[in-house]
Amino acid sequence: MEPQLQLVVEHLHTRYAHALDEDRLEDWPQFFTENGTYRITTAENEARGLPLPVLYAEGRPMLRDRVASLRHANIYEPQRYRHLVSSILVERTGEHRAASRANFLVVRIMQNGESLLFASGRYVDRIALAPEPRYEERVVICDSRAFDTLLAIPL
Amino acid sequence: MEPQLQLVVEHLHTRYAHALDEDRLEDWPQFFTENGTYRITTAENEARGLPLPVLYAEGRPMLRDRVASLRHANIYEPQRYRHLVSSILVERTGEHRAASRANFLVVRIMQNGESLLFASGRYVDRIALAPEPRYEERVVICDSRAFDTLLAIPL
Amino acid sequence: MEPQLQLVVEHLHTRYAHALDEDRLEDWPQFFTENGTYRITTAENEARGLPLPVLYAEGRPMLRDRVASLRHANIYEPQRYRHLVSSILVERTGEHRAASRANFLVVRIMQNGESLLFASGRYVDRIALAPEPRYEERVVICDSRAFDTLLAIPL
Repeated sequence: MEPQLQLVVEHLHTRYAHALDEDRLEDWPQFFTENGTYRITTAENEARGLPLPVLYAEGRPMLRDRVASLRHANIYEPQRYRHLVSSILVERTGEHRAASRANFLVVRIMQNGESLLFASGRYVDRIALAPEPRYEERVVICDSRAFDTLLAIPL
Repeated sequence: MEPQLQLVVEHLHTRYAHALDEDRLEDWPQFFTENGTYRITTAENEARGLPLPVLYAEGRPMLRDRVASLRHANIYEPQRYRHLVSSILVERTGEHRAASRANFLVVRIMQNGESLLFASGRYVDRIALAPEPRYEERVVICDSRAFDTLLAIPL
Repeated sequence: MEPQLQLVVEHLHTRYAHALDEDRLEDWPQFFTENGTYRITTAENEARGLPLPVLYAEGRPMLRDRVASLRHANIYEPQRYRHLVSSILVERTGEHRAASRANFLVVRIMQNGESLLFASGRYVDRIALAPEPRYEERVVICDSRAFDTLLAIPL
């Protein structure tokens, strides 16, 4: 365990969570490398080796498209998330590379003011540390297969 | 990101959470500077620039009054909270000053033994680092506007 | 607050949480010293000084037995947990010893795909730091007394 590396990776995860929770979706692609990939899947699919993600995006242009669609689709029904992220395990995988696993829980705040436990799971990440820390790959593995098909905001 | 500062601020947030969760309410004012302020508001009010907090207290005497009222009011109906705090973002704002944003989720444990997701949101803090870390201002921004008006224990 | 010690203890808690959440129950006894103890109790029992734990295991052989029973009992009804751990308070208690308190929340993922807030509470730990960090004692104090009597996977 490298203290400095641990804190650098935690800082990346933290900024990512705040960007989403503060509805700064336009900043979201910047957390990825130019060709970075983002994938949402379920624990069940992962365990069975099914390659079908709930969502897949590769490269910043595709991530930006995703945000644009969301902005268009959600004009009349804004929604908010609150991310809790803990148990962040970090491992150096190269001079400028790290891998990370972390647990998350996302609360969804509905328009009527109610809050509900929306999703839990883990992040499995490959991270480029230079020139600044960004996700080469972020895989969001949701615990539950009962999943909102209209999943909108990135997790 | 300054590693030492990060850990100092996390430590302050951690001790604060444990004081509340262990029902050491009398310790609560000590987490603030002499003139420190504490405010609970909602994300909606913040977004609309409404200055009406759900709760406001300024200075340790007022914080102590709040605790005294709680002790008086809640003799017959004790309640417990459990705080989860994550994604702590820290920024130095002066030689002996820092700002912090963090996400929280509070579980409320009822007398009948049930637990429920009581509140989620974020802490937005101004912190004095010397002579020891304390809150100059702690703003608790709750995600939901559906809020228990009999809100009792500080968040 | 010792930064290095803080991160070492957080790392132990993190690896523990992932072992359980990834269903690596067989690794669980290795997180304890040879004579390490594990106890689940409720806040109510602790407050009233009742020594009756919900679960008690002393020493690695007994911890291994526990895992073996679980594997046998749960063949037809696998269950999954997701741990969120935060607010980790660490104190040095000797050259190679530390004490820790932390808050946790556990989400249980049911077979039908639903998720529910299963348990919240705190870990109160005595930790041996050498030759490598392990629990001498891990006490899991659950907030709620409304507890699943068929409690299966360790918390």
